[in-house]
Amino acid sequence: MHSDGGRARHDLFQSTLLQIPDNVSAELLAYGQSKPDVISLAQGDVGLPTPDFICDAAYKAMQEGKTHYGPVLGQAPLRQGISDYYRDIFDVDVPSERVFVTSSGTASIHAALASIVEPEDEVICVTPIWRNIMGIVAMAGGTAVQVALDYTPEKGWDLDIEKIFAACTPKTKAILVVTPSNPTGWIMREEDMRAVFDFTRTRGIWMVADEVYGRFAYDVAKTPSFLEMAEPDDLLYVINSFSKAWAMTGWRLGWLIGPDISQKVVQDLILYENMGASTFSQYGALAALRDGEEFIESQKALWSENLDLFEEYMTPHDKVIFSRPQSTFYGFFKVEGQPDCIALCRDLIDRAGVSLAPGRSFGRDFEGWIRICCAVDKEILRKALERLSAAL
Amino acid sequence: MHSDGGRARHDLFQSTLLQIPDNVSAELLAYGQSKPDVISLAQGDVGLPTPDFICDAAYKAMQEGKTHYGPVLGQAPLRQGISDYYRDIFDVDVPSERVFVTSSGTASIHAALASIVEPEDEVICVTPIWRNIMGIVAMAGGTAVQVALDYTPEKGWDLDIEKIFAACTPKTKAILVVTPSNPTGWIMREEDMRAVFDFTRTRGIWMVADEVYGRFAYDVAKTPSFLEMAEPDDLLYVINSFSKAWAMTGWRLGWLIGPDISQKVVQDLILYENMGASTFSQYGALAALRDGEEFIESQKALWSENLDLFEEYMTPHDKVIFSRPQSTFYGFFKVEGQPDCIALCRDLIDRAGVSLAPGRSFGRDFEGWIRICCAVDKEILRKALERLSAAL
Repeated sequence: MHSDGGRARHDLFQSTLLQIPDNVSAELLAYGQSKPDVISLAQGDVGLPTPDFICDAAYKAMQEGKTHYGPVLGQAPLRQGISDYYRDIFDVDVPSERVFVTSSGTASIHAALASIVEPEDEVICVTPIWRNIMGIVAMAGGTAVQVALDYTPEKGWDLDIEKIFAACTPKTKAILVVTPSNPTGWIMREEDMRAVFDFTRTRGIWMVADEVYGRFAYDVAKTPSFLEMAEPDDLLYVINSFSKAWAMTGWRLGWLIGPDISQKVVQDLILYENMGASTFSQYGALAALRDGEEFIESQKALWSENLDLFEEYMTPHDKVIFSRPQSTFYGFFKVEGQPDCIALCRDLIDRAGVSLAPGRSFGRDFEGWIRICCAVDKEILRKALERLSAAL
Repeated sequence: MHSDGGRARHDLFQSTLLQIPDNVSAELLAYGQSKPDVISLAQGDVGLPTPDFICDAAYKAMQEGKTHYGPVLGQAPLRQGISDYYRDIFDVDVPSERVFVTSSGTASIHAALASIVEPEDEVICVTPIWRNIMGIVAMAGGTAVQVALDYTPEKGWDLDIEKIFAACTPKTKAILVVTPSNPTGWIMREEDMRAVFDFTRTRGIWMVADEVYGRFAYDVAKTPSFLEMAEPDDLLYVINSFSKAWAMTGWRLGWLIGPDISQKVVQDLILYENMGASTFSQYGALAALRDGEEFIESQKALWSENLDLFEEYMTPHDKVIFSRPQSTFYGFFKVEGQPDCIALCRDLIDRAGVSLAPGRSFGRDFEGWIRICCAVDKEILRKALERLSAAL
């Protein structure tokens, strides 16, 4: 035993970290993993391996000796490649100096929020939202102010932007929107984007947009980006990642677009947190941007069929409430008479052998909801849906 | 122009970040890079590519589909591999549950310090020290209290541990030592390690040891580790990295050993900062641990010859003060009559075409010193030393 002078745990560790609430979904995930023959559709991974042409490009870079330290904000060719990607796909000019390569989508969210949030600051978060984003706000000592999307079976998911404006206080440092939305597949309307963005300009606060699912809309090539309506010096951070669109979740590569004035701060933050992303991996990412359009289309075709299957299995159940998502690869549903998602998720692990993500972890207003990830092999999904169908 | 309501930069960004002092060595580095035909020995990179067997193992993992999300604290086989490495090389039992894989040595330092340092806390840092470590303390809102090694031409570098004890105040949260030391090559004596470690136990504060250069001592296989003198629940963090010993600087992989009680806090920190290290890269690291001993020996042989060369070229200069380092691959010297290392470094870029690292960035007591990285091709080093010799 060490003699620690009688110090308690709260003296030993950084106090903000200790105040982060426990992760209910992690506990459920572990419960599912502890049981045999459980199909896990709880995480937001993509059920395809990274395409060979991306792996081969990274390996080639290794063989060429690109195994050394690189610039903190990313390899010049990749920063330029991301700039080119915005020109080609979004028809928007984002100079490479405003492109910051990060070591994951999470790292992009973290860099954006940690660079601006002070203790006591508030960040308005449109919910439902991936709980880790609210965790990142909490870790910075800030408060995530939740503004919920509304749901009606007729209109599906919808945002009343007046609720955002009403939630704004003198402590508000940023408004954060994930569009397209994990877990609902909701896509923010362009006129609402403009209105909210204008509001942040008037207030002199930050607009933070997570556009990670921007290539997963099922009737267009890409969803609107805040970059399409931005001036270069707007207080705008746009978060993106290679994880989903190019099936690179395990690579830990993302990017962040910020205004010029953010470069020094973001560079310091990354310098002192991890000194930047893997050098050779960035050449895999560059190949993904350049030659990945066909893969994105093939992925969308697969997940669209899977969402059809989800719809097919869930529609006959009168008590199951959901709308076919406009984008992403998640189903988000609730079951009438089952208001406690944690209990229901646990029950579905026990009775159906299927592990799903509880709505509670997406915000306080989604207690009854459940997320299912459909980005898996179709036969696995079918088996899971059959089991769920029988249990519901 | 965005209308930002007249907010100034200090309102827009997180204030602690804005207070981090400018990086003098980065400015000098950029100055050297701006001139033609300058040999840069300013950074601490290793001048060898990553060995093929490590690259091949990572590529094999990619091909096997290890491209998905993995556990936040690292792949189970790598955590076990690091545990085995401590058993085999250090003859010490470190259970894999206490091994946290990180996305670089920097990320290990950051995780250790960010998990414990509150605003106003002090961290005693034995200097000279890599400035980024003090930057990490500053980013956490803490103060790095510098305790300098002493230098005499007779004894070389030496630590008076009484200076550490005297520097300790009620605000001291941790004592941080880098052993072997970048930039001096000094290795902490085992009895001093025990005495300082015991002192932290008595005070109930943390011992943080950066042992990244532990395999670069020139007369032993490895230098003493604090883990060899620790109980499992001691307040001890040990930082390490794959970067130097296995020439993997661009891979962004490191590890941290902490007590059981630190697991939840470190896991949360990594979860919300970047969600962990690259999945397939970790299998490259595992190959490094298992089959890398021969490479480590061959690297030591190269850098030892290079340090001979450094000695050979510097010894004839009466005004150049240095001691042959016991470990690492750095030379650290000062020039009599040249008290300003920034001016001298700039002058050496201009007159000798060699870019080196200024001592000022290693602590306030090393204003006159300069670091040269000798981990490069011998002929490049020879050319640089010839140029330096002529200029001095």
